[in-house]
Amino acid sequence: MNSSVEASRRGMRVTKPSDREIRIERIFDAPRDRVWRAFTEPALIAQWWGRGNGVVVERMEVERGGRWRFVEQGPDGTHGFEGRYRDVSPPERLVHSFEWDGMPGHVVIWTVTLEDLGDGRTRVVNTSIFHTTEERDGMLSAGMESGMTEAYAALDRVLAALR
Amino acid sequence: MNSSVEASRRGMRVTKPSDREIRIERIFDAPRDRVWRAFTEPALIAQWWGRGNGVVVERMEVERGGRWRFVEQGPDGTHGFEGRYRDVSPPERLVHSFEWDGMPGHVVIWTVTLEDLGDGRTRVVNTSIFHTTEERDGMLSAGMESGMTEAYAALDRVLAALR
Repeated sequence: MNSSVEASRRGMRVTKPSDREIRIERIFDAPRDRVWRAFTEPALIAQWWGRGNGVVVERMEVERGGRWRFVEQGPDGTHGFEGRYRDVSPPERLVHSFEWDGMPGHVVIWTVTLEDLGDGRTRVVNTSIFHTTEERDGMLSAGMESGMTEAYAALDRVLAALR
Repeated sequence: MNSSVEASRRGMRVTKPSDREIRIERIFDAPRDRVWRAFTEPALIAQWWGRGNGVVVERMEVERGGRWRFVEQGPDGTHGFEGRYRDVSPPERLVHSFEWDGMPGHVVIWTVTLEDLGDGRTRVVNTSIFHTTEERDGMLSAGMESGMTEAYAALDRVLAALR
């Protein structure tokens, strides 16, 4: 496979399956168990979730009903994010709420599925559902796509280091 | 005004404005400031929110971004509920998220508006929006309407005692 095909197959695809959803698909060059660890272990999350910014994992109880709270240390100050786990089904499905301190009470539900591609790679599909179309479009305007691209590039590096 | 007309005017009206919303309208025989207090003071909430069951107000920070958590002591055990305030505009508007421990990560947004009817009474409109129709219908099946009827009857008594 030449490098441009490889790049396109690993490239992130962002779509809008409905007027209140965002779907982000990305393939990672690592087996599913390793990707699952990177999504569920605090020490690993801290290395990629902040897209290069420091992340303090204040709380991360990866179980149904458990809470999580991450504080990102950005150049413009700190930003807190938090939520609660709805479903934790290793190594294939993680569902949790997501709320940014800057917009309290605006709650998004993220469903992350990990598909074993059988060749040592994993497809991650992240579907987020919002209460309104305005909230969905606000998240996109705020730079969600570039933020996820950066976070997933950092995740590539974390996964490579876990080899 | 005869008593049946009075009963109907004070009766609770439950409607479904869209496929993901529930709207509950109820008139209270008390001025708006007093109703606002009953919705925002922990000692008063504890007297009506549980519909006769004891309620421990573990947390109630009535300000934008603040958190609330109530634990109801029912005959079948304890039930935790929690959320975060999105908007607090006294004495007319309160918006907060709502989540029951039994269904973590299923988050409803409640918007409560208090309208001064000018005759010493207050109309309270409570609109809740869900992420899906199934969640909305699940809440109705779980007895939301009878629960709210009981809670609001208890609130009538709290308001009368505040006179």
